[in-house]
Amino acid sequence: MSRLWDKGLPLDERVLRYTAGEDHSLDGRLVDYDIRASIAHAEMLAAQQLLDPGDCRRICDGLRALGEEYRDGQWQIALADEDVHTALESRLTERIGAAGGRLHLGRSRNDQVLAALRLYLLDAADAASRSVAGMQQALAALEARQGDVALPGYTHMQQAMPSSVALWSAGFAAAFADAVTGLAASRRRMAQNPLGSAAGYGTPGLALDREATTEALGFAETQCPVTAVQLSRGKAEAGLLFELTLATQDLGRLASDLLLYYTQEFAYVALADDVTTGSSIMPQKRNPDVLELVRAAAATLQACLQECLMLTMKLPSGFQRDAQRMKAPLFRGIDLTIESFDVMAYLVSRTSFIAGNIRMDDSLHAAEEAYALVTREGIPFREAYRKVAARYSGGA
Amino acid sequence: MSRLWDKGLPLDERVLRYTAGEDHSLDGRLVDYDIRASIAHAEMLAAQQLLDPGDCRRICDGLRALGEEYRDGQWQIALADEDVHTALESRLTERIGAAGGRLHLGRSRNDQVLAALRLYLLDAADAASRSVAGMQQALAALEARQGDVALPGYTHMQQAMPSSVALWSAGFAAAFADAVTGLAASRRRMAQNPLGSAAGYGTPGLALDREATTEALGFAETQCPVTAVQLSRGKAEAGLLFELTLATQDLGRLASDLLLYYTQEFAYVALADDVTTGSSIMPQKRNPDVLELVRAAAATLQACLQECLMLTMKLPSGFQRDAQRMKAPLFRGIDLTIESFDVMAYLVSRTSFIAGNIRMDDSLHAAEEAYALVTREGIPFREAYRKVAARYSGGA
Amino acid sequence: MSRLWDKGLPLDERVLRYTAGEDHSLDGRLVDYDIRASIAHAEMLAAQQLLDPGDCRRICDGLRALGEEYRDGQWQIALADEDVHTALESRLTERIGAAGGRLHLGRSRNDQVLAALRLYLLDAADAASRSVAGMQQALAALEARQGDVALPGYTHMQQAMPSSVALWSAGFAAAFADAVTGLAASRRRMAQNPLGSAAGYGTPGLALDREATTEALGFAETQCPVTAVQLSRGKAEAGLLFELTLATQDLGRLASDLLLYYTQEFAYVALADDVTTGSSIMPQKRNPDVLELVRAAAATLQACLQECLMLTMKLPSGFQRDAQRMKAPLFRGIDLTIESFDVMAYLVSRTSFIAGNIRMDDSLHAAEEAYALVTREGIPFREAYRKVAARYSGGA
Amino acid sequence: MSRLWDKGLPLDERVLRYTAGEDHSLDGRLVDYDIRASIAHAEMLAAQQLLDPGDCRRICDGLRALGEEYRDGQWQIALADEDVHTALESRLTERIGAAGGRLHLGRSRNDQVLAALRLYLLDAADAASRSVAGMQQALAALEARQGDVALPGYTHMQQAMPSSVALWSAGFAAAFADAVTGLAASRRRMAQNPLGSAAGYGTPGLALDREATTEALGFAETQCPVTAVQLSRGKAEAGLLFELTLATQDLGRLASDLLLYYTQEFAYVALADDVTTGSSIMPQKRNPDVLELVRAAAATLQACLQECLMLTMKLPSGFQRDAQRMKAPLFRGIDLTIESFDVMAYLVSRTSFIAGNIRMDDSLHAAEEAYALVTREGIPFREAYRKVAARYSGGA
Repeated sequence: MSRLWDKGLPLDERVLRYTAGEDHSLDGRLVDYDIRASIAHAEMLAAQQLLDPGDCRRICDGLRALGEEYRDGQWQIALADEDVHTALESRLTERIGAAGGRLHLGRSRNDQVLAALRLYLLDAADAASRSVAGMQQALAALEARQGDVALPGYTHMQQAMPSSVALWSAGFAAAFADAVTGLAASRRRMAQNPLGSAAGYGTPGLALDREATTEALGFAETQCPVTAVQLSRGKAEAGLLFELTLATQDLGRLASDLLLYYTQEFAYVALADDVTTGSSIMPQKRNPDVLELVRAAAATLQACLQECLMLTMKLPSGFQRDAQRMKAPLFRGIDLTIESFDVMAYLVSRTSFIAGNIRMDDSLHAAEEAYALVTREGIPFREAYRKVAARYSGGA
Repeated sequence: MSRLWDKGLPLDERVLRYTAGEDHSLDGRLVDYDIRASIAHAEMLAAQQLLDPGDCRRICDGLRALGEEYRDGQWQIALADEDVHTALESRLTERIGAAGGRLHLGRSRNDQVLAALRLYLLDAADAASRSVAGMQQALAALEARQGDVALPGYTHMQQAMPSSVALWSAGFAAAFADAVTGLAASRRRMAQNPLGSAAGYGTPGLALDREATTEALGFAETQCPVTAVQLSRGKAEAGLLFELTLATQDLGRLASDLLLYYTQEFAYVALADDVTTGSSIMPQKRNPDVLELVRAAAATLQACLQECLMLTMKLPSGFQRDAQRMKAPLFRGIDLTIESFDVMAYLVSRTSFIAGNIRMDDSLHAAEEAYALVTREGIPFREAYRKVAARYSGGA
Repeated sequence: MSRLWDKGLPLDERVLRYTAGEDHSLDGRLVDYDIRASIAHAEMLAAQQLLDPGDCRRICDGLRALGEEYRDGQWQIALADEDVHTALESRLTERIGAAGGRLHLGRSRNDQVLAALRLYLLDAADAASRSVAGMQQALAALEARQGDVALPGYTHMQQAMPSSVALWSAGFAAAFADAVTGLAASRRRMAQNPLGSAAGYGTPGLALDREATTEALGFAETQCPVTAVQLSRGKAEAGLLFELTLATQDLGRLASDLLLYYTQEFAYVALADDVTTGSSIMPQKRNPDVLELVRAAAATLQACLQECLMLTMKLPSGFQRDAQRMKAPLFRGIDLTIESFDVMAYLVSRTSFIAGNIRMDDSLHAAEEAYALVTREGIPFREAYRKVAARYSGGA
Repeated sequence: MSRLWDKGLPLDERVLRYTAGEDHSLDGRLVDYDIRASIAHAEMLAAQQLLDPGDCRRICDGLRALGEEYRDGQWQIALADEDVHTALESRLTERIGAAGGRLHLGRSRNDQVLAALRLYLLDAADAASRSVAGMQQALAALEARQGDVALPGYTHMQQAMPSSVALWSAGFAAAFADAVTGLAASRRRMAQNPLGSAAGYGTPGLALDREATTEALGFAETQCPVTAVQLSRGKAEAGLLFELTLATQDLGRLASDLLLYYTQEFAYVALADDVTTGSSIMPQKRNPDVLELVRAAAATLQACLQECLMLTMKLPSGFQRDAQRMKAPLFRGIDLTIESFDVMAYLVSRTSFIAGNIRMDDSLHAAEEAYALVTREGIPFREAYRKVAARYSGGA
């Protein structure tokens, strides 16, 4: 039974839950980032003489203490808090009194959420990169172990040309290197400081120093004009999900190859016992569930990307609460990518090709023979092609 | 911080978690359904003399007790259980001894999962229908309260023809009536009994009575042949998500209308305070967050549908573990639909049109005038159209 | 070079082309349906005494003549016509004079488009059904030819249980039977008469008889209230595309199976030469391109469905021109489904399983052995399972 | 009627059509690029002494002549040609004899298609950039004309803060500047030379100089290893479609704003007659169809991206014919983006804000008043917020 099919709750309570959504459970990962952004904001206010130095120190110390206590598990974001931002501000005010109420000057929830989210995204892109790089290493190690094992090269799922475990691994390793480069490029849209745009129209009459928070937080630039900030909502998110979708799709294709090689008919690879599972009905089987779940992860990632893109589609400009629904697919996509890469790197490190089982069709060398005819006899390739084809005629 | 970015866990433990996925937290809603299906299976085995009557009674009593204890919160599905099926079977065996090990005869996890899931889906379709019907009632009540308030009818977001709150509500009510009919039709793919197909190829040498479980569980038919069962995986799920997507999209369009009517420029409607929220920076505002979140829900639903469809795409036939990833978008889509409809029904019941603010453009009657010219003067409509157009020329 | 990268066109001409879109090339298939709907409308107007009997006859005769001339290739819808509706009305007026201008009384482009489209959809659903049924027949013929050939049954792409060509074909045949039933059910949303809803708000002051056109055109019901019509735009379309997506996905999975069986490593099937293609570089190869293109078709169908659903998402109620973009994915999806089924039915009729190549793993009978142990020795299934598993231990 | 519902064609002919697909009509835009890549390949072969200098000259001259004749409309790619590559090679061989058959040495259709496609993509990205930049200029011109017109700034579609036409235009202009930067970054995945990878496994025994074609064609790098090439299929395409989706979505949001401002209730903008259209039933209306079609274009673009991504999902590595289906959504997405931007730039240049109609709610200055209270009285922002809120209490 779903929590909300229970219609026992009073209706206005259900409205509250609906509005808060899953933020209280999702926002845990933003605590540190919101604290960092709030400290930078407070210090900027103090430097602009919009905040008393003593209040600033109390605010920053209070936030740091809350961060430590959060990491120690001393508090959690509750449904009643709605989200990480309210959770922090209300606990801060409890702790340091009225000075806590001075922190929100020149800031709106709109730019605050984005600042924390973008700082998080920068870390998430790095974490994903590290996991992808782990996969590259696993492939390099496989190449070192078994690179010289001959393997058919396939086109149309048909044996086509001679290949090798080295070429096979290196192809995927190159795909993952491309993913790492792509992830680095996706940082551009994350590294833009939204702070100071407030609700999306700046802070009339209040002299903020946006460059100061840009520098303090390590953003690459201050996003301008202020109206650009909310319009850009979703793009850094989608940009990351797009790169994760490409990377996870490659990982899924690697899984597809291994699933094929692991069939009894191919029997090209052996998988370690701890990366396969048993069957509930067929006692003899060791199933490659991990590979299937990785293949499926590509579908989930693409759905996350789609959801993210659909959320902002067609909306008028200016902040819209629709953006709240973006966190769930974003975090889901990031976590699943990292988990999938880590698990697959482990699986590949425990996989070996069984050279003795790999049958190379004689016809794999047909193209090479045609090339040899051309260079030896000087005939056009198309003629050499026909001669070699005749030799193999009737073959599949 | 995501749970799995913490790389502290040993790798084989992470493989286990990856394979189990979220099942232990998602499967709670399947406990009752798995129990019902297991009881039907056990009783069929007993009737076929494949299970001793005493063992059968012990199994059924044990399962019923486990179900009650689950509802009382006495146990939960743990990660170590992997899923609801193992959780129940292992607890049953603990409780009644070796007889528990007799239950899985003639059954595979593959048909067992599907049986529980389809029984759940039938209930979920009903629950969604009730929520949609609740919305129809809210619209009917609105029509009763304010149906005679005149409203412009829009095309291209332009005032076009005379309409009314009655016509506006009734249009949406008809859309939701269509959704209820669609949900009922989606039951066809759910009401097929997979039990007895086992892993997807039947139970050679074992005389099961598939019709018996079909009847006991209230399925409409026994799914045949056994190989059809796993091929159909995802279709009942997608069929439900498709209907929920259509319904939620209509709900989102209703929200779009209200968002428009709630702008200061239209100011056609008043929303109750308890369905709006305040702003963190602009003290004067009451924001229609619920409407925005409902509008956004249509994007989430469509993403759930797409994820579900992508998961089975291109797979070879026969069971594939990829199907496990379907539960998350399925349950997410069901819950979000029900929550959104319930909250919107409440919102609509607390919404009123402000007749005094609604401006009806004179030109709204242009088509009617043209019709009158045609009937009065007998001229062709195209000529009447030109005459009336000339009268309004220059108007937008 | 794309037609519009050529910036030579004057800008207002480009606006015109942009607005007309592809309708002039897409609408060809709607000519007959628009004529049928227009005739029904004219006859209803005459019966309501809103149209002179002589004019009515001239209109109907003129439309029928235009229809015949269109089928004979005597005219085409030009860009300047914009769409099928204008093309017909202007040619009609040219032909019969002012009476042609009397046809549009009580009708808007909005209900007119929908009427033609829905009549077309009903035929399209039938045509798709026939193609799907053709595939069922091809599978039945395969079963008749080679049903008794033994085939491993796979789970997780691993040999799992004994199966046969008969079971394999019958599984897919059942999937396609389900598709035919699904297509029939999708007619519900098509068979609703939109005529008389005009722009979406009815025809004030004009006494139309909506039931008359419902009956004349064979619609199942008159769609009410008038405001429901434009809200329902896209649902019959999406409903059809959803069923076509499911069907094409199954077809793609059948292609995936055959692609696997056609690998040299399986070598379970032979494909006829006229359904394979040669390679441009490897003279020895016969490639299964048709199967790959069919597998890919499932992705295209799902994208058509998505596009259709996204087009209406979040829109305010009332007609919006966005709906025009729906025709392209709709027609694309219908055509591709029919083509894919027809081609695959032919391919299957020219495919044979090579019994001698099919290796059945001994372990396929493990479940059966466990069942036998249970029935013979009366031990619990879980114990039998462990005994049989031990026998196969070490086996993959 | 769809071309293929006509079942008159013999079945093997239909297989041929199915396999060739739409390539013959889509490939027109690739003629120049395939010629450029072929010339580079021929010259490299000659430099490597794999092609006689005279044959090389004949090949290159022949290709250039074919290119000119194509631009002059002297020939077209026919269905029988299948695609641009065969069309060119067969016409070349007709023209220069056997030497034409020497061109395909060391090349496969697989790397040849990709080379032409990537050269095209580089131009397409530039062309799209130019159109996006045209929109930036149109916005800059609007800002110059009417930048100082006051406009409410909206959040949640509610008047929230003071804004202006300048801030509104500049926000979108920044979004489009970001799109231009994104498009430039998307070139990275296009600018990789696939030539020399042949079918995906290189050209054993043939000493090609891959760097030579990289340099001659202006690619940024040679894609390595050869197995990386086919794995990367779809990524440059998806990368471009992703950027076009973001850009078109912003354009659609600009259209959403204008659709809102163009309602009679807002009446903030006037659109020129040549960018609006009339109604078929309501003589008084000027409809903003262009804006609706632009809003809808975002849905089409996202569907193109999703189709592209789904086509490669889950495929084993190595070339698969599925890739052929990518051209249609790719070209569709590129063309629609360029058309939409060009038309919207024109529309914006013909749009003016009607300052007299724009009502600015007094409450827009509430945040500013709260800021003033803070700086004047030194009270915490939260306290100032409450004071100002009390002043506006009861206001929406």
